[in-house]
Amino acid sequence: EGAAFRTLIENCESKKDFLKLIAGVMKITRLKKNREFRQKRVRAIAMSFNEKNLSKVIKAHQLGVTQYLAETFAIAQKRGWIKPDTDLVALSYFFQGSFIGHVLLDITKQVEYEERWSEIAFKALQPFLVAD
Amino acid sequence: EGAAFRTLIENCESKKDFLKLIAGVMKITRLKKNREFRQKRVRAIAMSFNEKNLSKVIKAHQLGVTQYLAETFAIAQKRGWIKPDTDLVALSYFFQGSFIGHVLLDITKQVEYEERWSEIAFKALQPFLVAD
Repeated sequence: EGAAFRTLIENCESKKDFLKLIAGVMKITRLKKNREFRQKRVRAIAMSFNEKNLSKVIKAHQLGVTQYLAETFAIAQKRGWIKPDTDLVALSYFFQGSFIGHVLLDITKQVEYEERWSEIAFKALQPFLVAD
Repeated sequence: EGAAFRTLIENCESKKDFLKLIAGVMKITRLKKNREFRQKRVRAIAMSFNEKNLSKVIKAHQLGVTQYLAETFAIAQKRGWIKPDTDLVALSYFFQGSFIGHVLLDITKQVEYEERWSEIAFKALQPFLVAD
């Protein structure tokens, strides 16, 4: 899904498009498909704590995904949408982590907070965006 | 650890104290103790996906922790440090989730990003704070 997101970023023609895309991404975290993806990731991560070989695989995969997302953010940064002083690898870890952390809302099933979770996640990105 | 955090919030005498406390919390996520706590949580969450009874326990626990943190945030909101229109339960889910998501950085062991992760996590909170 990293490649699909990059294509969507590349296709943004303005900062407005970019913001719309990001807001959309925050919203679709609640979809069944994405919930299942999170659960799979959490399960694999948990298993890796006690299995050396799996841990190596997960580590290599995570390094790759993080780097790829950081490079995707770099496209937005070059276009002047993300602040130049933002560390894109750290940003990549933080936002991937937030999506994994959405599992807490999956567990409690307080669906009435899904919409507000998406709003919070979107707002949390504001400090890293170039102001209009 | 929820009660300790609440006491720390209660003891803040100014918004400056509050900001210092929050920045500190973002920094200590990297400590071994907190890394181990995350791993335990992730393991318990992963196990709960396939075990109905455990899932009930985890759900009840998570509901309690989320509510308690939201009530702690409410103290800061009443004191005028968190914006009045911020949904504190959603904020509680988002930031707990970010801490769980720090597990991604634990996995890759890119310790050179720990400091910047803490900065990003702190900055991500800015949109919810009352401006000076």
